[in-house]
Amino acid sequence: MKIVALETHDIRFPTSAQLDGSDAMNPDPDYSAAYVVLRTEEGERGHGFAFTIGRGNDVQTTAIRALETYVVGRDCADLGAVYRDLVGDSQLRWLGPEKGVMHMAISAVMNALWDLRARLAGKPLWLLLAEMTPEEIVDLIDFRYITDALDRQGALEILRAAEPGKRERIAYLREHGFPAYATSPGWLGYDDDKLRRLCKEALDEGFTQIKLKVGADLDADVRRMRIAREVCGEGFPIAIDANQRWDVATAVGWVNALAEFDPWWVEEPTSPDDMLGHAAIAREIAPIPVATGEHVQNRIVFKQLLQAGAISYLQLDAARVGGVNENIAILLLAAKFGVPVCPHAGGVGLCELVQHLAMFDYVAVSGSMEGRVIEYIDHLHEHFVDPVVIENGSYVAPRTPGFSSALRAESLAEFAYPWGPVWNTEGYSRDRPPIASPKAGGSPSTAPGSS
Amino acid sequence: MKIVALETHDIRFPTSAQLDGSDAMNPDPDYSAAYVVLRTEEGERGHGFAFTIGRGNDVQTTAIRALETYVVGRDCADLGAVYRDLVGDSQLRWLGPEKGVMHMAISAVMNALWDLRARLAGKPLWLLLAEMTPEEIVDLIDFRYITDALDRQGALEILRAAEPGKRERIAYLREHGFPAYATSPGWLGYDDDKLRRLCKEALDEGFTQIKLKVGADLDADVRRMRIAREVCGEGFPIAIDANQRWDVATAVGWVNALAEFDPWWVEEPTSPDDMLGHAAIAREIAPIPVATGEHVQNRIVFKQLLQAGAISYLQLDAARVGGVNENIAILLLAAKFGVPVCPHAGGVGLCELVQHLAMFDYVAVSGSMEGRVIEYIDHLHEHFVDPVVIENGSYVAPRTPGFSSALRAESLAEFAYPWGPVWNTEGYSRDRPPIASPKAGGSPSTAPGSS
Repeated sequence: MKIVALETHDIRFPTSAQLDGSDAMNPDPDYSAAYVVLRTEEGERGHGFAFTIGRGNDVQTTAIRALETYVVGRDCADLGAVYRDLVGDSQLRWLGPEKGVMHMAISAVMNALWDLRARLAGKPLWLLLAEMTPEEIVDLIDFRYITDALDRQGALEILRAAEPGKRERIAYLREHGFPAYATSPGWLGYDDDKLRRLCKEALDEGFTQIKLKVGADLDADVRRMRIAREVCGEGFPIAIDANQRWDVATAVGWVNALAEFDPWWVEEPTSPDDMLGHAAIAREIAPIPVATGEHVQNRIVFKQLLQAGAISYLQLDAARVGGVNENIAILLLAAKFGVPVCPHAGGVGLCELVQHLAMFDYVAVSGSMEGRVIEYIDHLHEHFVDPVVIENGSYVAPRTPGFSSALRAESLAEFAYPWGPVWNTEGYSRDRPPIASPKAGGSPSTAPGSS
Repeated sequence: MKIVALETHDIRFPTSAQLDGSDAMNPDPDYSAAYVVLRTEEGERGHGFAFTIGRGNDVQTTAIRALETYVVGRDCADLGAVYRDLVGDSQLRWLGPEKGVMHMAISAVMNALWDLRARLAGKPLWLLLAEMTPEEIVDLIDFRYITDALDRQGALEILRAAEPGKRERIAYLREHGFPAYATSPGWLGYDDDKLRRLCKEALDEGFTQIKLKVGADLDADVRRMRIAREVCGEGFPIAIDANQRWDVATAVGWVNALAEFDPWWVEEPTSPDDMLGHAAIAREIAPIPVATGEHVQNRIVFKQLLQAGAISYLQLDAARVGGVNENIAILLLAAKFGVPVCPHAGGVGLCELVQHLAMFDYVAVSGSMEGRVIEYIDHLHEHFVDPVVIENGSYVAPRTPGFSSALRAESLAEFAYPWGPVWNTEGYSRDRPPIASPKAGGSPSTAPGSS
């Protein structure tokens, strides 16, 4: 697996021009991918990306480019070693460590290497991982800074305990897929009739859970939750998602005001950096569970969220932490603490990626589907060579070799920023300036597609 | 204060070629600055930078460049509003939020704006800040995500309580300066004779504290601490610094093995992201205090370190969190919890910056110098227009208007990367590749100058 070339693409979809679910907090997200293609001497390719929402995608692309000298010319057969070298480099580490732009760049490159590895093996990534031995899997992990919760031996024990029944779970996945939940009904900008109709449609399509955005207006949230509950019926899981909108006290008051509608979980009630804040909220709103993860920077923060009893659902993101390797550590931490993983998806290609991680978790780590669902949003899948397939409210287990991470060549050309055709069409200006004066206090994203 | 131009410079000092204190963990740091100059219509300039240690400085420079459209063409008179707009921008925020490369870029730009503001006011920054009213100061802060520990009213109370005596404290600073401590004696790579000699020199120069790097070899650390204690005498503050080297259990064992030498504090015993880990270590090594901060990403993490009782000394960094504004919030949080702030310095220009923040803290926030010292390393100051001055082991209070953040024009030309003369001299190759295969598990920095 000697890499001979790394190419990057700044790909942006002008979603801000055609949103049907935008809101006052996030007026103009342009869903984007800082996209990377790695190539071997034999011409095989691996594909990865960081998901962003527009401005700054050039910075993210530059960060990926900065990793060129770390992988090009190198035999990347040992993906544990490559990962530890990237996150451990003494100079790059200063830019994090293990967080933000540089860590997302490492994620993109590591995911591209995994795509390549799975293609070479002729298997979808979830199956490639699931068929590895416990020893091979723990060799992929960097246990630094998590040994107080999980060490190599503890990880081996979890993986060995999941060995029996692997074959049956693989067969189950191939037959039934992995359950999904639908975020599309609940965007803040929708009127009540549309909310009602989309809830109904989600039920008809077989989804076993939906999610509503909340946090802008409590009266509106009460009204919308009432509608969703009426349509879905008692006991149907309806999660709510505040997208980091609140401070601790506000979160507690707001969620308790919605308690009568029995929220399945409350997602991102406050800053993703505030483990103690999440824990305080969890105590004050119990028994309503707290979920978070899409903006959690690395395994060290997840470790603490688990240690503090702050979360009841762990929502890993495939492209924010250090790629497949770090997500395996996170899956094992979740298993150690008995917390189900319900991955974050949406955006550009996040559904494509996380399905592999959730399926690997089911087969080889947690061994369970109980309480586990993958987020699903029907958005931008048409740009992928191997898009997700949803049947009866479940993700169909991928059969194509790889990580489902390749964008179509036509999309790469059309949406290249700033020179692609779409950015040079009237109405989509590539010179669009940022918002002159965004709302004071920040504008957490609650855009459709990025949940 | 209308900004009409933003210029960036990738400045790297080839310190890896001339280290006298390098060590096995950090073989080749090239101290660098992603440097920014803002210019007004009238030709006034403000200067800021992010400090990095080499590779990735181009990524950091690109991130600063990405902020051009946010400040150029804008009247930046309201520095609270500019700061909240930068950290709150819904699209850029996705790259953090408030952490890593993008946050350091915001820091550089905000610090440049503050340099400009202080120059226009004809005052050194510490004095400009110290003479603001409590109301003006709290208007600079983003209280989002910290109100469970400190809100606007709480901040006002702290600032008002510090109003009496301001004039006397300003006079005291001008006469006596602010005490410094010396990191230079304790680099891991020094032999015992050099350690002994440098400890002696630090005492002779009037420093009231020194610091030793530890964490590579326990036997060597025991021997070195014994020497330092012999030279400095009983009771003289000797801090130790592990630069994130340990996991929790290792930290506890190692520090307790050094307890007989009475360490003044143990710095960065583990990951800067691990608040609960720091708290666990603090409990297990008590009464030896824990200090951290140079890699802490933002006020939200500092809030938790304080809430968890994890740190006894808070080591803010001038160029990692969101610049002056966020550091004011951090100073106030520290005051609220009664924890002294002892800023991190070294690197490129960090001494120049943090002296202003520590002096502002003394005059207008904590009102106290008790337990407070600023790190000092005698390195690279000659490249600054207004370098720090140390007399009798103390920082002399700056009198020149501004933030002391301007690099000399000659240095900008000489050390520009990759085209400056120094990078095209034999022996300093600009094409130097990264380490082919760094140590597995990462290489935390313990280089001279970056403490």
